[in-house]
Amino acid sequence: MSNPFFKNYGPLKISKVIKSLELDNSDLNKDEEIKDIKDLQSSRENDITFFHSKKYKDFAYKTKASFCLTTKVLKNALPQNCTAIVVDNVLVSTSKITSLFYPDSLNDHFDETINVISDTKFKDKVIYGKNVLIGKNVSIGDNCKIGHNTIIEKNVTIGDNCSLGSNNIIRNTLIKNNVRVLDNCVIGKHGFGFFPIKNKNLRYPHIGVVLIEDNCEIGCGATIDRGSMSNTIIGTNTYLDNQVHIAHNVKIGKNSIIAGQVGIAGSSIIGDNVKIGGQAGISGHLKIGKNVEIGGGSGVIRDIPDNTKVMGYPAKNIREFLKNNKWYTKQL
Amino acid sequence: MSNPFFKNYGPLKISKVIKSLELDNSDLNKDEEIKDIKDLQSSRENDITFFHSKKYKDFAYKTKASFCLTTKVLKNALPQNCTAIVVDNVLVSTSKITSLFYPDSLNDHFDETINVISDTKFKDKVIYGKNVLIGKNVSIGDNCKIGHNTIIEKNVTIGDNCSLGSNNIIRNTLIKNNVRVLDNCVIGKHGFGFFPIKNKNLRYPHIGVVLIEDNCEIGCGATIDRGSMSNTIIGTNTYLDNQVHIAHNVKIGKNSIIAGQVGIAGSSIIGDNVKIGGQAGISGHLKIGKNVEIGGGSGVIRDIPDNTKVMGYPAKNIREFLKNNKWYTKQL
Amino acid sequence: MSNPFFKNYGPLKISKVIKSLELDNSDLNKDEEIKDIKDLQSSRENDITFFHSKKYKDFAYKTKASFCLTTKVLKNALPQNCTAIVVDNVLVSTSKITSLFYPDSLNDHFDETINVISDTKFKDKVIYGKNVLIGKNVSIGDNCKIGHNTIIEKNVTIGDNCSLGSNNIIRNTLIKNNVRVLDNCVIGKHGFGFFPIKNKNLRYPHIGVVLIEDNCEIGCGATIDRGSMSNTIIGTNTYLDNQVHIAHNVKIGKNSIIAGQVGIAGSSIIGDNVKIGGQAGISGHLKIGKNVEIGGGSGVIRDIPDNTKVMGYPAKNIREFLKNNKWYTKQL
Repeated sequence: MSNPFFKNYGPLKISKVIKSLELDNSDLNKDEEIKDIKDLQSSRENDITFFHSKKYKDFAYKTKASFCLTTKVLKNALPQNCTAIVVDNVLVSTSKITSLFYPDSLNDHFDETINVISDTKFKDKVIYGKNVLIGKNVSIGDNCKIGHNTIIEKNVTIGDNCSLGSNNIIRNTLIKNNVRVLDNCVIGKHGFGFFPIKNKNLRYPHIGVVLIEDNCEIGCGATIDRGSMSNTIIGTNTYLDNQVHIAHNVKIGKNSIIAGQVGIAGSSIIGDNVKIGGQAGISGHLKIGKNVEIGGGSGVIRDIPDNTKVMGYPAKNIREFLKNNKWYTKQL
Repeated sequence: MSNPFFKNYGPLKISKVIKSLELDNSDLNKDEEIKDIKDLQSSRENDITFFHSKKYKDFAYKTKASFCLTTKVLKNALPQNCTAIVVDNVLVSTSKITSLFYPDSLNDHFDETINVISDTKFKDKVIYGKNVLIGKNVSIGDNCKIGHNTIIEKNVTIGDNCSLGSNNIIRNTLIKNNVRVLDNCVIGKHGFGFFPIKNKNLRYPHIGVVLIEDNCEIGCGATIDRGSMSNTIIGTNTYLDNQVHIAHNVKIGKNSIIAGQVGIAGSSIIGDNVKIGGQAGISGHLKIGKNVEIGGGSGVIRDIPDNTKVMGYPAKNIREFLKNNKWYTKQL
Repeated sequence: MSNPFFKNYGPLKISKVIKSLELDNSDLNKDEEIKDIKDLQSSRENDITFFHSKKYKDFAYKTKASFCLTTKVLKNALPQNCTAIVVDNVLVSTSKITSLFYPDSLNDHFDETINVISDTKFKDKVIYGKNVLIGKNVSIGDNCKIGHNTIIEKNVTIGDNCSLGSNNIIRNTLIKNNVRVLDNCVIGKHGFGFFPIKNKNLRYPHIGVVLIEDNCEIGCGATIDRGSMSNTIIGTNTYLDNQVHIAHNVKIGKNSIIAGQVGIAGSSIIGDNVKIGGQAGISGHLKIGKNVEIGGGSGVIRDIPDNTKVMGYPAKNIREFLKNNKWYTKQL
């Protein structure tokens, strides 16, 4: 993925890659150069990719990458154009190599390029509060308002007619038109992704962005993390209430309604016209269909098909939930 | 309701009202003027009101309003002094007309009237931190402290002996005496109320306030939304822990204790001396009696009578909860 | 406990102590002085201690304190060197006397000693953003970054190689090396501890600190309260995701992983290598062993032994949880 936020420090010599993985691959041409790291599908000649599960065999077979981090067992599925680099843990190695190409994606230090808005080109274009801070290469559309103490970090893009409240921190984010971000939000920080290692975890680089489509509203105190290898997306006209947490790689469809204190774990996909009640939680890597209604307080731990109402922990069809709680209609 | 926060742009001509609803009521005197929009009980001559459910028939029968948004079926319950304006969706129409009278209540743009406190009359009266911002017509009592980066927006009233921490945003709020608001709170923004419409939801105007009575404490990161047509109230000596979310129109009694990460959905009424354990959630439009204890993590989805202890999801009498979880006393 | 944050106003005359408790102990020498208030084990000659439950009989028997707040029944367990002061409610009285010695620990007013960082000795040592505020006697190690609008209150200590994000408030906290605090956190405020009294609760003084060990990461919007008589501790290489709430006196071990929106209530002890899924809640005063895994959304209301996986509300062994939810594998 290419985006304006993280500089690709490639091309890198294959010798540097091998060294960082502490490998001894004497059969590789160590002066050869690698341009970028991408997934199996989107990588091209001179890129390196990764292949860690037979689920992705069909993609592996057709990859155009010149190199691939993989295992002894899986390497035979790769095409001739792609040289296997066999490693013990494909995802850890991928994380290390991604960090070589995109070192800035690893840590979210504060943006040192920032200026007070009155010292930028936006001073006459934007209606702004006190102590508004703007990073380098930020783009802001027409008719926008930005509240007090809000920080827009470098390379962020904001469309037309947006109203940002006070005390927000926005980074690595693309905001379209007519979006309202209320107050105290943190949008675009890296996700909670890392490899647990004793005494010193290995952080997974996050080179994705947050994309907020037209007409969205983001409530107070929301946290929306950017994606790791893909993007986090809030679909058109979707509204988030206060204190909602959206983890990395989550994609929410159009016209959805997410009530207060909901949490959606990493990489889950939420359809269009979905309603999620307050304090509900959605586990990671799930697929929630369109027109789904999830009752307040529910804990969703499996996929939910289209047009379904669920409730409970674990969340089940709401008819089942009510049947199991018949006692509930009796005297408390 | 009249309050200092939202300017009434009335009186408005009946022609403007009809036009905004896209109605064709040729039998009305289009030059006649309407002063305000209120509920059935509090409206007076020359006001417009709304009547959307037969539950409110008794109030409708006695309303003093000159006009009423209602349905074909309900209109016959109105008295002679009140002209029915028949619409498809009473609440959507009420929302539209309220927005005509109170356009400022619709969106929570940041307060542009704000000044740094050292440029206001409070510079010698209040003990304040760095970068404290104060809006127009704010009132602050004796012996108050306001921490760094806190924003008090226009027309807010704060009593005596209050201690506000840092990074708070307070708007549309009346705070009485001896109140402590810790840090990072957002108090008084509009509630999460709107009519879902494809691609462009219709926001419901919120013309209520937040009222915080004497001796309350509001924990860090709390969000308390103001009311829509009524107020959100935190009763005397009620304490809220960190990361609590109180939605619009909620009324909490005296001497109640709300632990961390609790969420209370819109329009629920909580009695006096209520204890709510951490992470519990209360659905909207419920009535929780006095002296109720709600266990941590509970999900309350029905009314709870006075003097009851409940726990579970859905929350039930705690004796039932323990009986159903007898296995729980066995070895894990 | 002695720490740099709360000044001990002792020694105090015994007459002052008796007066504040409204006692009539005419047999005491009212001019005698008390140096400090501590628990049974750590108090020394000329200190006052407290003894409120027979659970602590063994400690009481050996205490070196010269005075002890206790009950008529318990006082006989005290040694000869220790004079009993009999009160109705030991903990309330302890709270009152602690407040006499440490009045600054009672309320978390904003830090008035603060300066903008460019006016401090850190201006050339630390890489900092706009509007960074630093209190008196703060200590910051080498190679640290502090983001915009972050407030480091008086006496806080920060080690080497730390990266603090923007909009944080840090007080009464000791941070070791290589720690990352992301954005919008409040660390070190007093816990939610008080004695409920009609119309005016009695706040419990919090004289503990927050201790964050090496290599930790604290996610956005976290709240970590300081301890009351002991400390709140986040162990080495423990990572907290966004919107986590850690209450007073909680101690978390090494290499633990706490996902988004988790809440841990007061005084619970969490072991090493513990994994807690999103939105899980842990009740107060529990002991969670090492290598425990707690599923997302769980509500833990009893101790969990080492090496156990639990899930559910109330949380039980995950095998039980799955057995009880067999229906769950069927069609939704």
